[in-house]
Amino acid sequence: MAAASMDGRVTAAVLIIGDEILSGRTQDTNLRDIAKFLGVHGVDLCEARTVADVHEEIVAALNALRTRYDYVITTGGIGPTHDDITADAVAAAFGVELYHHPEIVAQLEERVRSRPGAVMNEALLRMARVPVGGVLVRSSVTAPPGFNIGNVFTLAGVPTVMRGMLDDVGHRLKGGAVVVSRTVRVEGSGESLIAAPLEAVAKAHPAMSLGSYPFFGEGGYGSNLVLRSRDPQELAATVGELIEALKAAGIEGVREVEPTT
Amino acid sequence: MAAASMDGRVTAAVLIIGDEILSGRTQDTNLRDIAKFLGVHGVDLCEARTVADVHEEIVAALNALRTRYDYVITTGGIGPTHDDITADAVAAAFGVELYHHPEIVAQLEERVRSRPGAVMNEALLRMARVPVGGVLVRSSVTAPPGFNIGNVFTLAGVPTVMRGMLDDVGHRLKGGAVVVSRTVRVEGSGESLIAAPLEAVAKAHPAMSLGSYPFFGEGGYGSNLVLRSRDPQELAATVGELIEALKAAGIEGVREVEPTT
Repeated sequence: MAAASMDGRVTAAVLIIGDEILSGRTQDTNLRDIAKFLGVHGVDLCEARTVADVHEEIVAALNALRTRYDYVITTGGIGPTHDDITADAVAAAFGVELYHHPEIVAQLEERVRSRPGAVMNEALLRMARVPVGGVLVRSSVTAPPGFNIGNVFTLAGVPTVMRGMLDDVGHRLKGGAVVVSRTVRVEGSGESLIAAPLEAVAKAHPAMSLGSYPFFGEGGYGSNLVLRSRDPQELAATVGELIEALKAAGIEGVREVEPTT
Repeated sequence: MAAASMDGRVTAAVLIIGDEILSGRTQDTNLRDIAKFLGVHGVDLCEARTVADVHEEIVAALNALRTRYDYVITTGGIGPTHDDITADAVAAAFGVELYHHPEIVAQLEERVRSRPGAVMNEALLRMARVPVGGVLVRSSVTAPPGFNIGNVFTLAGVPTVMRGMLDDVGHRLKGGAVVVSRTVRVEGSGESLIAAPLEAVAKAHPAMSLGSYPFFGEGGYGSNLVLRSRDPQELAATVGELIEALKAAGIEGVREVEPTT
Protein backbone atom coordinates (compact mmCIF):
# COMPACT_ATOMS: atom_id res chain seq x y z
CA MET A 1 0.00 0.00 0.00
CA ALA A 2 3.07 2.14 0.35
CA ALA A 3 5.72 3.20 -2.12
CA ALA A 4 4.18 1.68 -5.21
CA SER A 5 1.04 3.78 -4.82
CA MET A 6 2.84 7.10 -4.53
CA ASP A 7 2.84 7.77 -8.25
CA GLY A 8 -0.92 7.25 -8.44
CA ARG A 9 -0.69 3.77 -9.90
CA VAL A 10 -2.68 0.99 -8.31
CA THR A 11 -0.46 -2.09 -8.12
CA ALA A 12 -0.83 -5.81 -7.61
CA ALA A 13 1.15 -9.04 -7.38
CA VAL A 14 0.11 -12.63 -8.01
CA LEU A 15 1.28 -15.50 -5.80
CA ILE A 16 0.89 -18.93 -7.40
CA ILE A 17 1.05 -21.74 -4.84
CA GLY A 18 1.67 -25.31 -5.84
CA ASP A 19 4.29 -28.02 -6.31
CA GLU A 20 2.55 -29.05 -9.55
CA ILE A 21 3.59 -25.83 -11.29
CA LEU A 22 7.23 -26.07 -10.16
CA SER A 23 7.50 -29.75 -11.11
CA GLY A 24 6.31 -28.97 -14.63
CA ARG A 25 3.30 -31.25 -14.24
CA THR A 26 0.83 -28.40 -14.73
CA GLN A 27 0.95 -25.46 -17.15
CA ASP A 28 -0.22 -22.39 -15.25
CA THR A 29 -2.78 -20.28 -17.08
CA ASN A 30 -4.14 -18.34 -14.10
CA LEU A 31 -1.44 -15.67 -14.25
CA ARG A 32 -2.45 -14.57 -17.71
CA ASP A 33 -6.16 -14.56 -16.84
CA ILE A 34 -5.52 -12.48 -13.73
CA ALA A 35 -3.20 -10.13 -15.64
CA LYS A 36 -5.93 -9.39 -18.19
CA PHE A 37 -8.54 -9.03 -15.45
CA LEU A 38 -6.38 -6.54 -13.52
CA GLY A 39 -5.71 -4.60 -16.71
CA VAL A 40 -9.43 -4.14 -17.30
CA HIS A 41 -9.71 -2.75 -13.76
CA GLY A 42 -6.82 -0.31 -14.16
CA VAL A 43 -4.55 -2.23 -11.77
CA ASP A 44 -0.87 -2.74 -12.72
CA LEU A 45 0.35 -6.28 -12.21
CA CYS A 46 3.97 -5.64 -11.15
CA GLU A 47 5.25 -9.04 -10.09
CA ALA A 48 4.34 -12.70 -9.86
CA ARG A 49 5.86 -15.44 -7.75
CA THR A 50 5.38 -19.18 -7.76
CA VAL A 51 6.20 -21.08 -4.57
CA ALA A 52 5.93 -24.68 -3.43
CA ASP A 53 3.47 -26.11 -0.90
CA VAL A 54 5.74 -25.13 1.99
CA HIS A 55 4.25 -23.09 4.84
CA GLU A 56 7.24 -20.83 5.52
CA GLU A 57 7.75 -20.10 1.83
CA ILE A 58 4.13 -19.06 1.33
CA VAL A 59 4.14 -16.86 4.44
CA ALA A 60 7.40 -15.15 3.46
CA ALA A 61 6.25 -14.47 -0.10
CA LEU A 62 2.85 -13.20 1.10
CA ASN A 63 4.43 -10.78 3.56
CA ALA A 64 6.93 -9.52 0.99
CA LEU A 65 4.21 -8.89 -1.59
CA ARG A 66 1.34 -7.57 0.56
CA THR A 67 3.50 -4.87 2.13
CA ARG A 68 4.79 -3.74 -1.26
CA TYR A 69 1.73 -3.77 -3.53
CA ASP A 70 -1.83 -2.54 -3.20
CA TYR A 71 -3.27 -5.99 -3.83
CA VAL A 72 -2.10 -9.59 -3.79
CA ILE A 73 -4.02 -12.40 -5.48
CA THR A 74 -3.11 -15.96 -4.53
CA THR A 75 -4.10 -19.09 -6.46
CA GLY A 76 -4.07 -22.69 -5.32
CA GLY A 77 -3.90 -24.70 -2.13
CA ILE A 78 -7.44 -24.25 -0.79
CA GLY A 79 -8.75 -27.78 -1.35
CA PRO A 80 -9.43 -30.48 1.26
CA THR A 81 -6.17 -32.45 1.27
CA HIS A 82 -3.10 -32.23 3.52
CA ASP A 83 -1.12 -30.32 0.88
CA ASP A 84 -3.75 -27.53 0.79
CA ILE A 85 -2.15 -25.17 3.27
CA THR A 86 -2.80 -21.72 1.81
CA ALA A 87 -5.44 -20.72 4.39
CA ASP A 88 -3.02 -21.59 7.22
CA ALA A 89 -0.28 -19.51 5.59
CA VAL A 90 -2.52 -16.47 5.00
CA ALA A 91 -3.73 -16.61 8.61
CA ALA A 92 -0.13 -16.86 9.84
CA ALA A 93 0.94 -13.92 7.66
CA PHE A 94 -1.81 -11.77 9.18
CA GLY A 95 -1.28 -13.19 12.69
CA VAL A 96 -4.87 -14.38 13.07
CA GLU A 97 -6.60 -17.71 13.66
CA LEU A 98 -8.67 -19.76 11.24
CA TYR A 99 -12.30 -20.64 11.90
CA HIS A 100 -14.96 -22.63 10.09
CA HIS A 101 -17.08 -20.10 8.21
CA PRO A 102 -20.77 -20.99 8.79
CA GLU A 103 -21.82 -20.14 5.22
CA ILE A 104 -19.23 -22.52 3.74
CA VAL A 105 -20.10 -25.21 6.29
CA ALA A 106 -23.78 -24.92 5.27
CA GLN A 107 -22.80 -25.10 1.59
CA LEU A 108 -20.71 -28.22 2.18
CA GLU A 109 -23.53 -29.84 4.22
CA GLU A 110 -25.90 -29.17 1.35
CA ARG A 111 -23.43 -30.75 -1.05
CA VAL A 112 -23.12 -33.85 1.16
CA ARG A 113 -26.93 -34.19 1.34
CA SER A 114 -27.25 -33.99 -2.44
CA ARG A 115 -24.65 -36.65 -3.21
CA PRO A 116 -25.49 -40.25 -2.32
CA GLY A 117 -22.71 -41.79 -0.27
CA ALA A 118 -21.02 -38.46 0.53
CA VAL A 119 -20.20 -37.79 4.17
CA MET A 120 -19.15 -34.70 6.07
CA ASN A 121 -15.66 -35.18 7.43
CA GLU A 122 -12.61 -33.33 8.64
CA ALA A 123 -11.12 -33.08 5.16
CA LEU A 124 -14.22 -31.48 3.68
CA LEU A 125 -14.38 -29.06 6.61
CA ARG A 126 -10.84 -27.88 5.76
CA MET A 127 -12.41 -26.06 2.83
CA ALA A 128 -14.58 -24.04 5.24
CA ARG A 129 -11.56 -22.55 7.03
CA VAL A 130 -11.26 -18.76 6.72
CA PRO A 131 -8.94 -16.41 8.64
CA VAL A 132 -10.67 -14.34 11.34
CA GLY A 133 -11.55 -11.01 9.72
CA GLY A 134 -11.73 -12.51 6.23
CA VAL A 135 -14.75 -12.14 3.96
CA LEU A 136 -15.83 -14.67 1.35
CA VAL A 137 -14.99 -14.49 -2.36
CA ARG A 138 -17.71 -16.53 -4.02
CA SER A 139 -17.22 -18.33 -7.29
CA SER A 140 -19.89 -18.27 -9.95
CA VAL A 141 -18.80 -21.87 -10.58
CA THR A 142 -20.17 -24.35 -8.02
CA ALA A 143 -17.40 -24.59 -5.48
CA PRO A 144 -16.59 -23.50 -1.93
CA PRO A 145 -15.60 -19.82 -1.83
CA GLY A 146 -12.18 -18.27 -1.46
CA PHE A 147 -11.65 -15.32 0.85
CA ASN A 148 -10.32 -11.78 1.13
CA ILE A 149 -8.42 -10.46 4.13
CA GLY A 150 -6.70 -7.08 4.14
CA ASN A 151 -5.33 -6.56 0.65
CA VAL A 152 -5.00 -10.29 -0.10
CA PHE A 153 -7.46 -12.29 -2.20
CA THR A 154 -7.12 -16.07 -1.85
CA LEU A 155 -8.58 -17.92 -4.82
CA ALA A 156 -8.77 -21.49 -6.07
CA GLY A 157 -6.12 -23.01 -8.33
CA VAL A 158 -8.48 -24.81 -10.73
CA PRO A 159 -8.76 -22.30 -13.60
CA THR A 160 -12.55 -22.47 -14.12
CA VAL A 161 -13.20 -22.00 -10.39
CA MET A 162 -10.55 -19.26 -10.17
CA ARG A 163 -12.12 -17.32 -13.04
CA GLY A 164 -15.50 -17.64 -11.35
CA MET A 165 -14.02 -16.10 -8.20
CA LEU A 166 -12.55 -13.13 -10.11
CA ASP A 167 -16.16 -12.09 -10.82
CA ASP A 168 -16.47 -11.43 -7.07
CA VAL A 169 -13.13 -9.59 -6.84
CA GLY A 170 -13.49 -6.79 -9.41
CA HIS A 171 -16.04 -4.71 -7.52
CA ARG A 172 -13.72 -4.63 -4.47
CA LEU A 173 -10.73 -3.15 -6.31
CA LYS A 174 -9.99 0.55 -6.34
CA GLY A 175 -8.57 0.69 -9.83
CA GLY A 176 -6.67 3.44 -11.55
CA ALA A 177 -7.06 4.70 -15.09
CA VAL A 178 -7.18 1.76 -17.46
CA VAL A 179 -4.13 1.11 -19.61
CA VAL A 180 -4.97 1.00 -23.31
CA SER A 181 -2.70 -0.62 -25.85
CA ARG A 182 -2.24 -0.21 -29.59
CA THR A 183 0.00 -2.28 -31.84
CA VAL A 184 2.12 -1.20 -34.80
CA ARG A 185 3.22 -4.17 -36.90
CA VAL A 186 6.40 -4.13 -38.95
CA GLU A 187 6.78 -6.86 -41.55
CA GLY A 188 10.03 -7.71 -43.32
CA SER A 189 12.38 -5.75 -41.04
CA GLY A 190 14.22 -7.18 -38.05
CA GLU A 191 14.33 -5.63 -34.60
CA SER A 192 17.84 -4.31 -35.14
CA LEU A 193 16.54 -1.87 -37.77
CA ILE A 194 13.48 -0.95 -35.73
CA ALA A 195 15.42 -0.37 -32.51
CA ALA A 196 16.74 3.17 -33.10
CA PRO A 197 13.48 4.89 -34.17
CA LEU A 198 11.57 2.92 -31.51
CA GLU A 199 13.96 4.02 -28.79
CA ALA A 200 13.83 7.66 -29.90
CA VAL A 201 10.03 7.67 -29.64
CA ALA A 202 10.13 5.79 -26.31
CA LYS A 203 12.52 8.35 -24.84
CA ALA A 204 10.23 11.19 -25.93
CA HIS A 205 7.34 9.58 -24.02
CA PRO A 206 8.74 8.32 -20.71
CA ALA A 207 5.27 7.82 -19.19
CA MET A 208 4.40 5.28 -21.86
CA SER A 209 5.45 1.68 -22.31
CA LEU A 210 6.77 0.70 -25.75
CA GLY A 211 7.75 -2.92 -26.29
CA SER A 212 8.99 -4.85 -29.30
CA TYR A 213 7.86 -8.47 -29.75
CA PRO A 214 9.52 -10.12 -32.74
CA PHE A 215 7.88 -12.84 -34.76
CA PHE A 216 9.21 -15.24 -37.37
CA GLY A 217 7.83 -18.34 -38.95
CA GLU A 218 5.28 -19.20 -41.58
CA GLY A 219 4.03 -15.63 -41.93
CA GLY A 220 7.45 -14.08 -42.59
CA TYR A 221 9.32 -12.09 -39.96
CA GLY A 222 9.14 -8.73 -38.27
CA SER A 223 7.99 -7.32 -34.95
CA ASN A 224 4.86 -6.18 -33.17
CA LEU A 225 5.49 -2.87 -31.44
CA VAL A 226 3.09 -2.55 -28.54
CA LEU A 227 2.36 0.91 -27.13
CA ARG A 228 0.64 1.11 -23.74
CA SER A 229 -0.62 4.21 -21.93
CA ARG A 230 -3.25 5.46 -19.52
CA ASP A 231 -3.67 8.57 -21.68
CA PRO A 232 -5.56 7.79 -24.91
CA GLN A 233 -4.57 11.13 -26.49
CA GLU A 234 -0.86 10.63 -25.88
CA LEU A 235 -1.25 7.06 -27.09
CA ALA A 236 -2.85 8.14 -30.38
CA ALA A 237 -0.22 10.84 -30.95
CA THR A 238 2.61 8.41 -30.20
CA VAL A 239 1.28 5.78 -32.59
CA GLY A 240 1.43 8.45 -35.32
CA GLU A 241 4.94 9.54 -34.30
CA LEU A 242 6.20 5.97 -34.28
CA ILE A 243 4.85 5.18 -37.73
CA GLU A 244 6.43 8.39 -39.06
CA ALA A 245 9.76 7.66 -37.37
CA LEU A 246 9.86 4.12 -38.80
CA LYS A 247 9.08 5.36 -42.30
CA ALA A 248 11.69 8.13 -41.97
CA ALA A 249 14.23 5.40 -41.14
CA GLY A 250 13.43 3.74 -44.46
CA ILE A 251 11.42 0.89 -42.93
CA GLU A 252 8.57 -0.42 -45.04
CA GLY A 253 5.69 -2.74 -44.20
CA VAL A 254 4.50 -0.63 -41.25
CA ARG A 255 0.84 -0.57 -40.26
CA GLU A 256 -1.33 -0.45 -37.19
CA VAL A 257 -3.09 -3.72 -36.38
CA GLU A 258 -5.68 -4.79 -33.83
CA PRO A 259 -3.93 -5.31 -30.50
CA THR A 260 -3.83 -8.92 -29.35
CA THR A 261 -4.56 -7.69 -25.82
CA MET B 1 24.72 -22.13 -3.08
CA ALA B 2 24.10 -21.79 0.63
CA ALA B 3 21.34 -23.02 2.89
CA ALA B 4 19.27 -24.73 0.26
CA SER B 5 22.09 -27.13 -0.57
CA MET B 6 22.68 -28.28 2.97
CA ASP B 7 20.20 -31.16 2.78
CA GLY B 8 21.87 -32.52 -0.36
CA ARG B 9 19.26 -31.19 -2.74
CA VAL B 10 20.37 -29.18 -5.74
CA THR B 11 18.04 -26.22 -6.10
CA ALA B 12 17.09 -23.66 -8.72
CA ALA B 13 14.86 -20.67 -9.36
CA VAL B 14 13.51 -19.24 -12.60
CA LEU B 15 13.32 -15.49 -13.24
CA ILE B 16 10.97 -14.54 -16.08
CA ILE B 17 11.62 -11.01 -17.34
CA GLY B 18 9.09 -9.15 -19.42
CA ASP B 19 6.20 -6.69 -19.39
CA GLU B 20 4.38 -8.86 -21.91
CA ILE B 21 3.85 -11.63 -19.35
CA LEU B 22 2.58 -9.26 -16.65
CA SER B 23 0.23 -7.45 -19.05
CA GLY B 24 -1.36 -10.75 -20.04
CA ARG B 25 -0.36 -10.27 -23.67
CA THR B 26 1.80 -13.39 -23.69
CA GLN B 27 1.16 -16.80 -22.11
CA ASP B 28 4.44 -17.96 -20.61
CA THR B 29 5.37 -21.56 -21.41
CA ASN B 30 9.08 -21.37 -20.59
CA LEU B 31 8.58 -22.05 -16.88
CA ARG B 32 7.06 -25.45 -17.52
CA ASP B 33 9.73 -26.38 -20.06
CA ILE B 34 12.51 -25.39 -17.67
CA ALA B 35 10.80 -27.20 -14.77
CA LYS B 36 10.72 -30.45 -16.74
CA PHE B 37 14.31 -29.92 -17.90
CA LEU B 38 15.55 -29.37 -14.33
CA GLY B 39 13.63 -32.43 -13.15
CA VAL B 40 15.44 -34.60 -15.66
CA HIS B 41 18.74 -33.28 -14.32
CA GLY B 42 17.85 -33.90 -10.67
CA VAL B 43 17.56 -30.20 -9.83
CA ASP B 44 14.65 -29.01 -7.66
CA LEU B 45 12.90 -25.93 -9.01
CA CYS B 46 11.95 -24.17 -5.77
CA GLU B 47 10.64 -20.79 -6.86
CA ALA B 48 9.82 -18.70 -9.90
CA ARG B 49 9.41 -14.95 -10.21
CA THR B 50 8.14 -12.79 -13.03
CA VAL B 51 9.25 -9.16 -13.09
CA ALA B 52 8.76 -6.23 -15.46
CA ASP B 53 11.38 -4.65 -17.74
CA VAL B 54 12.63 -2.44 -14.90
CA HIS B 55 16.36 -2.47 -14.12
CA GLU B 56 16.13 -2.22 -10.34
CA GLU B 57 13.46 -4.93 -10.16
CA ILE B 58 15.51 -7.38 -12.20
CA VAL B 59 18.67 -6.72 -10.18
CA ALA B 60 16.86 -7.12 -6.85
CA ALA B 61 15.17 -10.36 -7.90
CA LEU B 62 18.42 -11.76 -9.32
CA ASN B 63 20.34 -11.03 -6.13
CA ALA B 64 17.59 -12.51 -3.94
CA LEU B 65 17.48 -15.70 -5.98
CA ARG B 66 21.15 -16.29 -6.82
CA THR B 67 22.19 -16.09 -3.18
CA ARG B 68 19.49 -18.52 -2.11
CA TYR B 69 19.50 -21.24 -4.77
CA ASP B 70 22.21 -23.24 -6.50
CA TYR B 71 21.13 -22.05 -9.95
CA VAL B 72 19.04 -19.27 -11.46
CA ILE B 73 17.73 -19.40 -15.02
CA THR B 74 16.46 -16.14 -16.51
CA THR B 75 14.34 -15.84 -19.65
CA GLY B 76 13.68 -12.78 -21.77
CA GLY B 77 15.09 -9.34 -22.40
CA ILE B 78 18.21 -10.20 -24.45
CA GLY B 79 17.10 -8.87 -27.84
CA PRO B 80 18.29 -5.70 -29.62
CA THR B 81 15.68 -3.13 -28.55
CA HIS B 82 15.73 -0.54 -25.76
CA ASP B 83 13.50 -2.69 -23.53
CA ASP B 84 16.00 -5.57 -23.64
CA ILE B 85 17.89 -4.79 -20.45
CA THR B 86 18.58 -8.19 -18.92
CA ALA B 87 22.33 -8.20 -19.72
CA ASP B 88 22.69 -4.80 -18.01
CA ALA B 89 20.86 -6.09 -14.94
CA VAL B 90 22.89 -9.30 -14.68
CA ALA B 91 26.13 -7.32 -15.00
CA ALA B 92 24.94 -4.89 -12.32
CA ALA B 93 23.96 -7.75 -10.00
CA PHE B 94 27.47 -9.23 -10.31
CA GLY B 95 29.17 -5.81 -10.21
CA VAL B 96 30.93 -6.24 -13.56
CA GLU B 97 30.94 -4.45 -16.91
CA LEU B 98 29.47 -5.58 -20.21
CA TYR B 99 31.59 -6.07 -23.30
CA HIS B 100 30.94 -7.09 -26.90
CA HIS B 101 31.77 -10.78 -27.12
CA PRO B 102 33.85 -11.35 -30.29
CA GLU B 103 32.17 -14.66 -31.14
CA ILE B 104 28.71 -13.08 -31.09
CA VAL B 105 29.94 -10.05 -33.04
CA ALA B 106 31.33 -12.40 -35.70
CA GLN B 107 28.05 -14.33 -35.79
CA LEU B 108 26.08 -11.10 -36.21
CA GLU B 109 28.43 -9.88 -38.96
CA GLU B 110 27.93 -13.18 -40.78
CA ARG B 111 24.17 -12.73 -40.47
CA VAL B 112 24.36 -9.20 -41.86
CA ARG B 113 26.45 -10.40 -44.82
CA SER B 114 23.97 -13.17 -45.64
CA ARG B 115 20.89 -10.93 -45.64
CA PRO B 116 20.55 -8.40 -48.46
CA GLY B 117 19.87 -4.96 -47.07
CA ALA B 118 20.88 -5.84 -43.50
CA VAL B 119 23.34 -3.52 -41.78
CA MET B 120 25.41 -3.80 -38.62
CA ASN B 121 24.27 -1.18 -36.15
CA GLU B 122 24.25 -0.32 -32.47
CA ALA B 123 20.98 -2.19 -31.87
CA LEU B 124 22.27 -5.43 -33.35
CA LEU B 125 25.47 -5.09 -31.34
CA ARG B 126 23.39 -4.95 -28.15
CA MET B 127 22.84 -8.67 -28.62
CA ALA B 128 26.62 -9.24 -28.43
CA ARG B 129 26.88 -7.79 -24.92
CA VAL B 130 28.03 -10.26 -22.26
CA PRO B 131 29.11 -9.53 -18.67
CA VAL B 132 32.87 -9.78 -18.08
CA GLY B 133 33.51 -13.31 -16.82
CA GLY B 134 30.47 -14.72 -18.58
CA VAL B 135 30.61 -17.69 -20.95
CA LEU B 136 28.29 -18.26 -23.88
CA VAL B 137 25.19 -20.45 -23.83
CA ARG B 138 24.63 -21.38 -27.46
CA SER B 139 21.24 -22.19 -28.88
CA SER B 140 20.79 -25.08 -31.29
CA VAL B 141 18.28 -22.76 -32.97
CA THR B 142 19.88 -20.08 -35.13
CA ALA B 143 20.12 -17.12 -32.80
CA PRO B 144 22.72 -15.14 -30.86
CA PRO B 145 23.75 -17.00 -27.67
CA GLY B 146 22.75 -16.32 -24.10
CA PHE B 147 25.36 -16.48 -21.34
CA ASN B 148 26.27 -17.98 -17.99
CA ILE B 149 27.96 -16.07 -15.20
CA GLY B 150 28.38 -17.48 -11.71
CA ASN B 151 25.29 -19.58 -11.00
CA VAL B 152 23.06 -17.57 -13.36
CA PHE B 153 22.06 -18.70 -16.87
CA THR B 154 20.58 -15.93 -19.02
CA LEU B 155 18.46 -17.33 -21.84
CA ALA B 156 16.20 -15.96 -24.57
CA GLY B 157 12.47 -15.40 -24.06
CA VAL B 158 11.29 -16.81 -27.39
CA PRO B 159 10.37 -20.41 -26.47
CA THR B 160 12.01 -22.17 -29.43
CA VAL B 161 15.27 -20.28 -28.92
CA MET B 162 15.10 -20.78 -25.16
CA ARG B 163 14.66 -24.55 -25.54
CA GLY B 164 17.62 -24.61 -27.92
CA MET B 165 19.74 -22.91 -25.25
CA LEU B 166 18.74 -25.45 -22.57
CA ASP B 167 20.63 -28.04 -24.65
CA ASP B 168 23.79 -26.11 -23.76
CA VAL B 169 22.89 -25.76 -20.06
CA GLY B 170 22.35 -29.37 -18.95
CA HIS B 171 25.98 -30.48 -19.08
CA ARG B 172 26.96 -27.59 -16.79
CA LEU B 173 24.58 -28.50 -13.96
CA LYS B 174 25.65 -30.57 -10.99
CA GLY B 175 22.38 -32.38 -10.51
CA GLY B 176 21.22 -34.49 -7.61
CA ALA B 177 19.35 -37.77 -7.72
CA VAL B 178 16.50 -37.52 -10.18
CA VAL B 179 12.98 -37.30 -8.77
CA VAL B 180 10.71 -40.00 -10.15
CA SER B 181 6.93 -39.73 -10.01
CA ARG B 182 4.13 -42.28 -10.11
CA THR B 183 0.42 -41.53 -10.23
CA VAL B 184 -2.48 -43.31 -8.54
CA ARG B 185 -5.80 -42.36 -10.07
CA VAL B 186 -9.04 -42.44 -8.10
CA GLU B 187 -12.26 -42.27 -10.10
CA GLY B 188 -15.67 -41.57 -8.62
CA SER B 189 -14.53 -40.35 -5.20
CA GLY B 190 -13.93 -36.73 -4.23
CA GLU B 191 -10.83 -35.41 -2.49
CA SER B 192 -12.63 -35.17 0.85
CA LEU B 193 -12.84 -38.99 1.02
CA ILE B 194 -9.29 -39.46 -0.23
CA ALA B 195 -7.78 -36.93 2.17
CA ALA B 196 -7.50 -39.02 5.36
CA PRO B 197 -5.78 -42.12 3.92
CA LEU B 198 -3.60 -39.90 1.71
CA GLU B 199 -2.47 -37.82 4.68
CA ALA B 200 -1.74 -40.93 6.76
CA VAL B 201 0.54 -42.31 4.05
CA ALA B 202 2.15 -38.88 3.48
CA LYS B 203 2.95 -38.56 7.20
CA ALA B 204 4.57 -42.01 7.19
CA HIS B 205 6.89 -40.89 4.35
CA PRO B 206 8.04 -37.34 5.16
CA ALA B 207 10.86 -37.44 2.59
CA MET B 208 8.35 -37.94 -0.22
CA SER B 209 5.98 -35.54 -1.91
CA LEU B 210 2.34 -36.66 -2.21
CA GLY B 211 -0.06 -34.30 -3.97
CA SER B 212 -3.72 -34.57 -4.91
CA TYR B 213 -4.89 -33.04 -8.19
CA PRO B 214 -8.66 -33.28 -8.62
CA PHE B 215 -10.33 -33.57 -11.99
CA PHE B 216 -13.93 -33.21 -13.09
CA GLY B 217 -15.59 -32.86 -16.44
CA GLU B 218 -16.47 -35.10 -19.33
CA GLY B 219 -14.56 -38.06 -17.96
CA GLY B 220 -16.30 -38.10 -14.56
CA TYR B 221 -14.61 -36.86 -11.40
CA GLY B 222 -11.92 -37.95 -9.01
CA SER B 223 -8.30 -37.13 -8.30
CA ASN B 224 -4.81 -37.96 -9.50
CA LEU B 225 -2.56 -38.67 -6.54
CA VAL B 226 1.02 -37.93 -7.56
CA LEU B 227 3.85 -39.48 -5.54
CA ARG B 228 7.35 -38.08 -6.06
CA SER B 229 10.61 -39.35 -4.60
CA ARG B 230 14.33 -39.65 -5.25
CA ASP B 231 14.24 -43.20 -3.89
CA PRO B 232 12.64 -45.62 -6.38
CA GLN B 233 12.28 -48.36 -3.75
CA GLU B 234 10.47 -46.13 -1.26
CA LEU B 235 8.36 -44.83 -4.14
CA ALA B 236 7.28 -48.34 -5.18
CA ALA B 237 6.51 -49.34 -1.59
CA THR B 238 4.52 -46.17 -0.99
CA VAL B 239 2.43 -46.62 -4.13
CA GLY B 240 1.44 -50.03 -2.75
CA GLU B 241 0.71 -48.63 0.71
CA LEU B 242 -1.42 -45.84 -0.71
CA ILE B 243 -3.51 -48.16 -2.86
CA GLU B 244 -4.06 -50.42 0.16
CA ALA B 245 -4.96 -47.48 2.42
CA LEU B 246 -7.48 -46.15 -0.10
CA LYS B 247 -9.12 -49.56 -0.49
CA ALA B 248 -9.20 -50.05 3.29
CA ALA B 249 -11.08 -46.73 3.51
CA GLY B 250 -13.74 -48.21 1.21
CA ILE B 251 -12.67 -46.19 -1.85
CA GLU B 252 -13.18 -47.91 -5.19
CA GLY B 253 -11.92 -47.04 -8.65
CA VAL B 254 -8.25 -46.94 -7.59
CA ARG B 255 -5.50 -47.80 -10.06
CA GLU B 256 -2.02 -46.75 -11.01
CA VAL B 257 -1.78 -44.87 -14.29
CA GLU B 258 1.06 -43.56 -16.41
CA PRO B 259 2.32 -40.31 -14.91
CA THR B 260 1.61 -37.23 -16.99
CA THR B 261 5.07 -35.98 -16.11
